[in-house]
Amino acid sequence: MSVSETKAGAVKNLQDLADLAGVSRATASRALNDNPRISQATRDKIQALARDHGYAINRRARDFRLQRTGVIAVVFMLDIESKQHMSDLFFLDMLGGIADSLAERDYDLLLARAPVLDVRDLNNSRMLNQSDGAIFIGQGEQHEQLNNLARQRSSLVVWGEPVPGKQYVLVGSNNEVGGYQAATHLVAKGRRKIAFFGSTGNPENAARFAGYQRALAEHGLEFDPALKFDIPFDMEAAQSAIPELLQSSPDFDAVMCVTDVMAMATLSALQHRGTRVPEDIAVVGYDDISLAAYSSPPLTTVRQHIREAGAVLVDSVLGLINGNPVKDTLLDTELIVRRSSDTKS
Amino acid sequence: MSVSETKAGAVKNLQDLADLAGVSRATASRALNDNPRISQATRDKIQALARDHGYAINRRARDFRLQRTGVIAVVFMLDIESKQHMSDLFFLDMLGGIADSLAERDYDLLLARAPVLDVRDLNNSRMLNQSDGAIFIGQGEQHEQLNNLARQRSSLVVWGEPVPGKQYVLVGSNNEVGGYQAATHLVAKGRRKIAFFGSTGNPENAARFAGYQRALAEHGLEFDPALKFDIPFDMEAAQSAIPELLQSSPDFDAVMCVTDVMAMATLSALQHRGTRVPEDIAVVGYDDISLAAYSSPPLTTVRQHIREAGAVLVDSVLGLINGNPVKDTLLDTELIVRRSSDTKS
Repeated sequence: MSVSETKAGAVKNLQDLADLAGVSRATASRALNDNPRISQATRDKIQALARDHGYAINRRARDFRLQRTGVIAVVFMLDIESKQHMSDLFFLDMLGGIADSLAERDYDLLLARAPVLDVRDLNNSRMLNQSDGAIFIGQGEQHEQLNNLARQRSSLVVWGEPVPGKQYVLVGSNNEVGGYQAATHLVAKGRRKIAFFGSTGNPENAARFAGYQRALAEHGLEFDPALKFDIPFDMEAAQSAIPELLQSSPDFDAVMCVTDVMAMATLSALQHRGTRVPEDIAVVGYDDISLAAYSSPPLTTVRQHIREAGAVLVDSVLGLINGNPVKDTLLDTELIVRRSSDTKS
Repeated sequence: MSVSETKAGAVKNLQDLADLAGVSRATASRALNDNPRISQATRDKIQALARDHGYAINRRARDFRLQRTGVIAVVFMLDIESKQHMSDLFFLDMLGGIADSLAERDYDLLLARAPVLDVRDLNNSRMLNQSDGAIFIGQGEQHEQLNNLARQRSSLVVWGEPVPGKQYVLVGSNNEVGGYQAATHLVAKGRRKIAFFGSTGNPENAARFAGYQRALAEHGLEFDPALKFDIPFDMEAAQSAIPELLQSSPDFDAVMCVTDVMAMATLSALQHRGTRVPEDIAVVGYDDISLAAYSSPPLTTVRQHIREAGAVLVDSVLGLINGNPVKDTLLDTELIVRRSSDTKS
């Protein structure tokens, strides 16, 4: 098959083909698929246009011309010790946002096998050699290794918390402010003994914890170390750890959790022992995953704009690939008040 | 760096390394990452073992030896006309199951940019050339094109409905029985005017519709074509279409939806107009996505064993890659009764 360069340039994607034929994108697609819902005449016309303009091979030709693979790698930095899974609900929401943004921009997505024990191992890997750029979700405990990798690969963007000395482009939410919003809300609701549920081993959670401490201090409440609980990340482990700690130390009137998944495990454990939420104990989560609005009671949470985050991550990595200057992005967080902390919601 | 073949064979993965060192997987991982929570002596010991046994390069060496890419491609067959997204909740649940299974088996996952207009275009694509096998989720309206592709690429598994003449390995749920279970349940609850919400353009939904018709016939109820409504797939479009149809034709006492996402849009539209669920109209969904148990009221649905499906898809494609005979798998569906159809649940 031979296609003249001039003609081939005109029809780069489905929209171009649809415009040329004067039909909708959906009709163009169905005609290419020989769908009987479209009249034979229209099918013939659009298929001929596609053939004449080298539609099918243009995507590949363009990739070749631009010396790009058309692939962006995505690596989730899972916490190995807590047996976090890729099917974690926050990750899936984030992956959906990234996948939609990449699809709109005509890129495939290469999802790394997890866990990635040492991101430095990726430097000469097929994974990075066969992609144009990489998005890392979370820093885990590998900030230094990410720095090492960033010194050798420029098209690399990390979702997480801006930590001192970082040498990679970062996209994240303002975790300190998020933690502050959650704790301030609980204080405003009259709570005085506010427990903190979650490990603070990674930079994002550490910042949320710092915001929680700032809110307590500003409202004249002393931080009680006995109310800080190190809870595992994954739902199953949390579901067995939380009832135990409720048994031994129930002396609080509110809980702030570092994730919604943890907050939902907390709701379930509290309900199981007959504690009323929010009357006896108010609960606030973090993330605003799709499920949060549907829990029972619906969950007050700190919204991370997850889908917008996916788009910003994709724009940032494509900016680096194209050689543009790319700055860090810190997205605002937003307190979403629902019934788990507010009887009037 | 040089590694003797004999030694290298012994430590193929993190578990091997952990076993050799007599520590847990988590400790081995942290030691490799130079995590200060692990004593310097243990870190030194495990890092030396990893070096001596060529741990880091063994994964790559093995891929090379086996002439494999270590990548499985995943293609979602989205319905273009209805603007279905990759962030659709059923897809995300399915993707999570596949991703976890692939990670356990040490494979990367290459997610195709969507929509794929004609799967035959994939035949000489980088996507399939740089992967060992491919999983297609759904058949869309491209059954024939999948047949064409399967004749040329053997390592190809499709999630969907077994249609006559198919030439690819298929994994699916028993959709006809699923549709039958949903409708039979509604009849048993005393409902007589049972609406069917959903397009039947793809083989899976057509089979669910056939099961619904069989259930009506077996219980002496006549099928009323006026109660079959063609609703778009995606949540937003469904949310605008459903209130309209409720306005014009509310003469039914139950609704069976082809997906949970559609059922949740239906719940929301019914509540908005003050209709009581299930007292006035009972609602049943399909899939049992993570959200279904948390909707308000919780949603009765036909469970597809989504995570198990992910594992079966992965096992089937790896079986084909290894040259083993692989049969089709049809998973059982299961009716999950919740409050949206049963006041006593």
